[in-house]
Amino acid sequence: MSAHTAISIRQRADYWLETIARVDPALLAFVHVARDGARAEAAALEARMAAGELLGPCAGLPLAVKDNIDVAGMPCTVGIASFRDRVPLTDARLVALWRAAGGIVLGKTNMDEGALGALTDNAAFGRCDNPAAPGFTAGGSSGGSAAAVASGMAPVALGSDTLGSVRIPASYCGVIGFKPTRGVLSRQGVAILSWSLDNPGIFARDIDRLITVFECLAVHDDEDPDSVALPDPAPRYERPLVIGVPVQLAQVTLEPEVAVAFAGAREALVRAGIEVREVDIPQWDPQKLRRSAFIVAEVEGAVSFSDLLADENSDITPAFRAMLEFGRDLPAPRYASARRYCTEVGFAARRVVQSVDALLLPTTPQRAFAHDADHPANQADLTALANAGGLPAISVPAPMEGRPVGLQLVGPALNDRRLLEIARQVQGTWLAT
Amino acid sequence: MSAHTAISIRQRADYWLETIARVDPALLAFVHVARDGARAEAAALEARMAAGELLGPCAGLPLAVKDNIDVAGMPCTVGIASFRDRVPLTDARLVALWRAAGGIVLGKTNMDEGALGALTDNAAFGRCDNPAAPGFTAGGSSGGSAAAVASGMAPVALGSDTLGSVRIPASYCGVIGFKPTRGVLSRQGVAILSWSLDNPGIFARDIDRLITVFECLAVHDDEDPDSVALPDPAPRYERPLVIGVPVQLAQVTLEPEVAVAFAGAREALVRAGIEVREVDIPQWDPQKLRRSAFIVAEVEGAVSFSDLLADENSDITPAFRAMLEFGRDLPAPRYASARRYCTEVGFAARRVVQSVDALLLPTTPQRAFAHDADHPANQADLTALANAGGLPAISVPAPMEGRPVGLQLVGPALNDRRLLEIARQVQGTWLAT
Repeated sequence: MSAHTAISIRQRADYWLETIARVDPALLAFVHVARDGARAEAAALEARMAAGELLGPCAGLPLAVKDNIDVAGMPCTVGIASFRDRVPLTDARLVALWRAAGGIVLGKTNMDEGALGALTDNAAFGRCDNPAAPGFTAGGSSGGSAAAVASGMAPVALGSDTLGSVRIPASYCGVIGFKPTRGVLSRQGVAILSWSLDNPGIFARDIDRLITVFECLAVHDDEDPDSVALPDPAPRYERPLVIGVPVQLAQVTLEPEVAVAFAGAREALVRAGIEVREVDIPQWDPQKLRRSAFIVAEVEGAVSFSDLLADENSDITPAFRAMLEFGRDLPAPRYASARRYCTEVGFAARRVVQSVDALLLPTTPQRAFAHDADHPANQADLTALANAGGLPAISVPAPMEGRPVGLQLVGPALNDRRLLEIARQVQGTWLAT
Repeated sequence: MSAHTAISIRQRADYWLETIARVDPALLAFVHVARDGARAEAAALEARMAAGELLGPCAGLPLAVKDNIDVAGMPCTVGIASFRDRVPLTDARLVALWRAAGGIVLGKTNMDEGALGALTDNAAFGRCDNPAAPGFTAGGSSGGSAAAVASGMAPVALGSDTLGSVRIPASYCGVIGFKPTRGVLSRQGVAILSWSLDNPGIFARDIDRLITVFECLAVHDDEDPDSVALPDPAPRYERPLVIGVPVQLAQVTLEPEVAVAFAGAREALVRAGIEVREVDIPQWDPQKLRRSAFIVAEVEGAVSFSDLLADENSDITPAFRAMLEFGRDLPAPRYASARRYCTEVGFAARRVVQSVDALLLPTTPQRAFAHDADHPANQADLTALANAGGLPAISVPAPMEGRPVGLQLVGPALNDRRLLEIARQVQGTWLAT
C-alpha cells in the first residue's frame, strides 16, 4: 500500500464531508453528520494501511445510514422527536460488517417518522428535498438516504423497506435502490416497524458499487431469527433473458411520463433480444395488497412503538399517533387476514417469478410530486409485492430527462446476485438506446 | 403377485371393518365408516394386482382419517354440527398420496369441535373413550384417530396438530403420534384452524409402520404455500446420541407417574450410552407459549370459521362460539405480539435443538384424566414448542403399566427421517430395560 493511497482515504473523507456541508443545508438529507468520527475513522484506516494491513473491499468508502439503523455513538431517532437523545452504544450488525470491510460512516439520514410514510417530510427533523427535482418530494421513508446519494453527498447509503421505503425514494430521486431477499441483510440493530415486512436495503448510483457493498453486507446472522444465508452465485446464463410483466399492472393508473418510460424500456429490452412476456400473479390486487401491507405495518408498528403510544406526553405527531392508534384498536382478525393475504400473494409471486428471470414493473405509478401536492395513495402499489413475497427487488432509473422515473426488477428469492447482474444487463440495453 | 395375496387385501379390509363394528360402539372413535367404499377399494386393488400391476408400498393398508381432512365422497364435518352435510368431491392431497401408494380409507374419526380443544368430547358426534383407559379421555383434538389406532381398529391414522392435537391423544392412548416439520405434509384439503400453527400428523403403533406411511405422504406440494421439500436422509451416525432436556421442564408441574416415567426413560438412555444433557431454550416460558399459541389459534380460527360465527343460527356449541368470539374481538396487537412470541421462542428452539440430536420431554404433564374430571389447563405446555418452531416431534409411549405416559422427542427442522430413527433407537433402550 502506497503513501499516496493512504493519504487519499482522509482526502476522500474530507471531500464527502465538504460536499455535505455545502449541499445539505438546502436538502436536509442528513440529520446527523459524523464530521469528527468520519475523519477519525479515515485516519485509523490510514494508520492500519501504513502498518501494512490489507483493508477490506470497501476501504475508505463512506456510507450514509438511515436514522433507524444503530451506529455506535451517533443519535438514532427513527425519525421520532421523542428519541432525539437516544444514542446506541453498539453498531447494528450491518454497520459492524461495513466497518469490517473497511468502510466509514458519514452520518445518519432523514426519514419519515417511525418509517411510516413515503415523503420524508419530518415535522421534527425537516423536509428533505429532492436533488433531482428541487421543490418535489424525495419520497420515503428512506428519503434522506436516497437524496444523499442522488446529490453526491454519499456514494452509498443504507435504508429500510417495508412496503417500498427504499425503492420509492430511489425512483423519485433517480438512483438505484435495492431491497434484497428477506433475511439476507440482518435486521439486528435496525429499529423494526413491521417485523413481517421490513428489510434493509442499499442505495447507490451504479450497479457495480452496489454489488461491492452488497457482498460485504450479505452475511448470515445467527442472532436474527429471520436471517437466511445467500447461496453461492448461480452460473451465468448463456440463453437470452426472459422478463415477465405482470398483467396486474393494468390495474394501476400510471402517470403518462411513467407509462412512456416503461414502454420505452420494454421496447429496448425486446430490441436487445430479451423476451418480454406477460405473466399473471393469481390473487394479486395491487390496491388490496398495499392496503393489507399497510394494516400489517400499522399493527406491528403499534406493538413496536407501544411505549410511545401509551405515553400521552410522547413527542410524536398527531398523524403518526393516529396511524399507530388505528393499528392498536384494529380487531385481530383484520390483521390476521391482512397478513394472510400478504402471505398468499407473496407465495403466488414467488412461484410466478420462477418462471422467468425477473419481473419488470414501474417502481412507482408517479414521478416525484410537489411538496405541497396531495399525497397519492398508490405510491406503494407496485413495490409492496416484493415485501409480501420476501423477494429481491431493485429500482433502476429509466433513461429519460426531467423528473426521474424508476423501473423495478423483481427476482426469484435468494437469486439476489443474479438479479443484480440482470439489472446491469437491462440497464445496458436502456443506456444503449 | 399370487392369487393368495390378491384375496388377502379384501380379507384384511373385512377384518378391520369387522373390528370397527365390534369395538367402536363403545369408543366412538369413528364418525363415519366407509364400509362399502373400503371394500370396493380393496376389490379394485385386487383387480389391479391380478392384472399384474405392482401396487405401492402401502398396498391394501387401511387408514383412519381425522374428520377435518377431505376424503372424496365422505362427510367432512371438522367436528362441527353445521357441517354435517358437507361432502367434499376431491381428496385432500395427503389422501390422494395415500391412494397412490395403494392404501385404502376406512373412515373418518371423531375430534374436538373445529379442532379447538383436547378432549374429543364432541357435543354433536359423541365422547370418544380411551381404549387404554376406559372412562378416561382420549385427549384431542385428534382423539378419534388415536383411539382407533390404540384399539386395533386401524393400523394407522391421520390427525392434525395445532398445539399438540396429534401428540396429546397419542400420549393419553399409548400410541405413537408424529407431527413432522411444518410444511412437510401438505395441508391442501385439510380444514385449517390456524394457518400459522396447524400441521398434519400420523398415528401408528410401531415406528416401522409409521416410517412407511410417512415416506408415502412426505411429498412436496406445489399448491401449498407452506410446503417444504424434505431433503434426502442424512447419513446414519456412528457416534453416540446426545439428547437434550430443556431446563424449562422444571416450570411445568408433572403428575408423579409422568415424572417417574420420564426419569426412568432418561436413566435408560444413560445406561445405553446415550448422553443426556440439560439445555436452555432462551425466552421459552411454557405457560406463556401455550397461552400465546392458543390466542393465535383462536384469532385464526375466528377468520377460518368467520361464516359460522357471523350466522347466529350456526349449529355450534356456546363454548366453541365463545372461543371464536374471543378471537374475533381481541385487539390486533395482542394477536401480533402472541404470534411474534411464538416465532421468537420457535427460533430459539430451532437453534438449541441443533446443538443436540433431539430434545426429550414428557408429551403431556399428566396421563389421561377421567371424563368428568376438571380439564387441566396445561395439556399443551410441552407440545406447543414444536408448533412454534415448526419442528418435527414424536410422542412415544413410555414402557410402563397402567394409564399410558407419552414421551416426546423433538428434532431439528427437516431432520424428520433422522428423528424417526432416533425414536426407534430410544424406544429400544426403553424396551430393553
